[in-house]
Amino acid sequence: MAKEKKLVEAITSMEEDFAQWYTDVVLKSDLVDYTSVKGCMVIKPAGYAIWENIQHELDRRFKETGVENVYLPMFIPESLLQKEKDHVEGFAPEVAWVTHGGLEPLQERLCVRPTSETLFCDFYAKEIHSHRDLPKVYNQWCSVVRWEKTTRPFLRSREFLWQEGHTAHATAEEAEERTIQMLNVYADFCEQELAIPVIKGQKTDKEKFAGAEATYTIESLMHDGKALQSGTSHNFGDGFAQAFDIQYTDKDNTLKHVHQTSWGMTTRMIGAIIMVHGDNSGLKLPPRIAPIQVMIVPIRQDAEGVMDKSQEVLKALKGCDIRAKIDATDKSPGWKFSEQEMRGIPIRIELGPKDIEKNQAVLVRRDTREKFVVSIEDIPAKAEELLEVIQNEMFNRALEHRNSHTYDAKTYEEFQKTIEEKPGFIRAMWCGSQECEDKIKEDTAATSRCIPFTQDQISDTCVCCGKPAKKMVYWGRAY
Amino acid sequence: MAKEKKLVEAITSMEEDFAQWYTDVVLKSDLVDYTSVKGCMVIKPAGYAIWENIQHELDRRFKETGVENVYLPMFIPESLLQKEKDHVEGFAPEVAWVTHGGLEPLQERLCVRPTSETLFCDFYAKEIHSHRDLPKVYNQWCSVVRWEKTTRPFLRSREFLWQEGHTAHATAEEAEERTIQMLNVYADFCEQELAIPVIKGQKTDKEKFAGAEATYTIESLMHDGKALQSGTSHNFGDGFAQAFDIQYTDKDNTLKHVHQTSWGMTTRMIGAIIMVHGDNSGLKLPPRIAPIQVMIVPIRQDAEGVMDKSQEVLKALKGCDIRAKIDATDKSPGWKFSEQEMRGIPIRIELGPKDIEKNQAVLVRRDTREKFVVSIEDIPAKAEELLEVIQNEMFNRALEHRNSHTYDAKTYEEFQKTIEEKPGFIRAMWCGSQECEDKIKEDTAATSRCIPFTQDQISDTCVCCGKPAKKMVYWGRAY
Repeated sequence: MAKEKKLVEAITSMEEDFAQWYTDVVLKSDLVDYTSVKGCMVIKPAGYAIWENIQHELDRRFKETGVENVYLPMFIPESLLQKEKDHVEGFAPEVAWVTHGGLEPLQERLCVRPTSETLFCDFYAKEIHSHRDLPKVYNQWCSVVRWEKTTRPFLRSREFLWQEGHTAHATAEEAEERTIQMLNVYADFCEQELAIPVIKGQKTDKEKFAGAEATYTIESLMHDGKALQSGTSHNFGDGFAQAFDIQYTDKDNTLKHVHQTSWGMTTRMIGAIIMVHGDNSGLKLPPRIAPIQVMIVPIRQDAEGVMDKSQEVLKALKGCDIRAKIDATDKSPGWKFSEQEMRGIPIRIELGPKDIEKNQAVLVRRDTREKFVVSIEDIPAKAEELLEVIQNEMFNRALEHRNSHTYDAKTYEEFQKTIEEKPGFIRAMWCGSQECEDKIKEDTAATSRCIPFTQDQISDTCVCCGKPAKKMVYWGRAY
Repeated sequence: MAKEKKLVEAITSMEEDFAQWYTDVVLKSDLVDYTSVKGCMVIKPAGYAIWENIQHELDRRFKETGVENVYLPMFIPESLLQKEKDHVEGFAPEVAWVTHGGLEPLQERLCVRPTSETLFCDFYAKEIHSHRDLPKVYNQWCSVVRWEKTTRPFLRSREFLWQEGHTAHATAEEAEERTIQMLNVYADFCEQELAIPVIKGQKTDKEKFAGAEATYTIESLMHDGKALQSGTSHNFGDGFAQAFDIQYTDKDNTLKHVHQTSWGMTTRMIGAIIMVHGDNSGLKLPPRIAPIQVMIVPIRQDAEGVMDKSQEVLKALKGCDIRAKIDATDKSPGWKFSEQEMRGIPIRIELGPKDIEKNQAVLVRRDTREKFVVSIEDIPAKAEELLEVIQNEMFNRALEHRNSHTYDAKTYEEFQKTIEEKPGFIRAMWCGSQECEDKIKEDTAATSRCIPFTQDQISDTCVCCGKPAKKMVYWGRAY
């Protein structure tokens, strides 16, 4: 009852207040809830099942490239965190500190891992001796903690789930190759599975990871025109190896430092799915990642034959490896329809006594609300076809939205006017100085999202200072 | 090189020093390593892959019974931990406390979850209102922390991985049913997948979980005759529901407290696999849980056709869903053989130029060292058959070992003599008083492992005090 009440209150429209729309959708589609632990969320079954699908698909892709999974401790001794100077400066202000074990104070404070570079380095220093021990291509699935001041479900929370890959290589070339390879895995995963188009590029020095030589990123555009960093891949060179003394004896019998990378993707991608695809009726899940792809809603389920036929259709769908379910609760069909819409289930099947008489059912697409009257035996084939169509069209709509919200700016005036009036990506030239990045951020709240791999020469001068331009950069306000 | 050196040092024999044998095997079979974080381990690829298989198989069984996965925060505010009296007394002395977030002291200390009953209760109090919201059958895969003084890889470490299921039900009967159902899932999993026979039973009040009405357990016997608690399932009655005010409106419109359960299995099962099946050459993995089931070792791999034929065999094995791999490193075949044995790979295939000439290969069982000369085309079928045989025979050997190390004791003298001279389970009658449990523990270091579901009337009086006996109990020294 309480739940029914909750859902019938309309969610805030995204045009009116996008942030409130987002909060309404994550809560009312039953993905998460707040907890008594400030800044930490519960990921509920509907949300966690999406994460399981993300894990499954990413993990499969990782393993195809030779990645092996491991598990390292969740605690980092303070002295270990401090070994790499840039890294500790980046993370120390936002870690949670364990000071007592049981009733005793600890001799040395431990932080709860915000990321595990230092632990992997400590491990690799012990593990790696010879060129035969290389490469190491390890990954772990775990939760990490960053003591954020303001939090939002999935997008920024004090604890979140992610995977973090950490690799060690004999040469700089191999490390760079792995860094780019994993960025490509992320990009492919986002586009193929989540139907989210991404821009691949490099972060500026200002925006790169604490301790990295180079950070690569995939950036996506949310429905409100704000950017979301969706996955990053870092090349550390031999900086960490120097700090942690990770050396190997090469074939020529000389000692050399390894070259390292790390790369991560997090539960914030669930936030991205919501903000790229959702609408004012709730969530829209891309079929490939949807825990339930087809929901069968029996109409007048007490009528003779309705549940039997629903079971028959369910069985046929499962036989085609479609993730299907029957909603056999005692709610009204109308209520069930809006619940399926809120939860973003790609296809619903309406099946009542009249349909059964005519040996048919009605298939309804969540994304377009198009209806299809289909004979019972054709349901699995039609559902399969529609799931494929929905996946592709969701990607295309997201791509069109991004393209129509990407603007070129040649002058600073144009830049400022665009960012105020037309939320989206701005493509503009940059001289390469951090001063210009700082000024742009101060003036417009936009940050450099990336230096894209695909460069265009929009003009010859920096959009900010007017000096000769070095690179074309994607700019935007970001989550 | 360094690694080769490590392996050729013989491991300590289990007859000489079982504890040292265990440590040697976990380290030399590359399952884990120690870290700079005292009491916490690295689970290396060979170890983590076993855990992934355990997760996969358990999770599949859970979901078949309607379990849904969720994720709750890793932190518990001190006030929340204190809500259930018995529970906090049981856990507070061994938790890690977070006192600072970033540079600021926290207003309230947070402990890193040792188990999540209190968080689930807090969540359920918010989620459950009506009988329609029941049952809740949730589980999470995560790591937990218990600040142990002495630790051993897999068996007792400050951080370990596990799953913890937490359910809420309308009635006491349904909660009891779920408690037993999950115990049966664990028992079936251990026997079918890990080839470890278990005794199912109930814990005495002294040994039950902090805050539980009843704790059920599966107990297994290690090679050294010590017991290992292998999985537990708790019925909380409505104790936590009272403490956390988890109530629902029933169909008759009255408010009632829910009845709850929880159940867990951990990475310590990897320790059980080692100590039940291992021998003085290292690990022996049951085929169903082995990350690599068949290792192909090419002999004279530079010789013409050897690698091609190995690839052909690999492909044929994979085609039959056998997890197979080729060891193409530049180590000697003899070295590879002992490495496969150390790592417990169930079957190795030796394949050299002379074999290829005769269109055959040699299959060697890890568990019995039996050799089979098999024609190339028969390899997949023979491997399939052998994997099945190995799985069954490993279970049978473990069962025989347990049976031959289970003793009945009618008198206290007999009990004390047996525990000193014949390590194993002792079946003996008990009056039901904690005084006798305490005395037995003090005199013999044995604890009550469980009151088994299958009872025998060994005698009429308590083995300790001689008063009338209530139950037959399994006793043993335990990990």
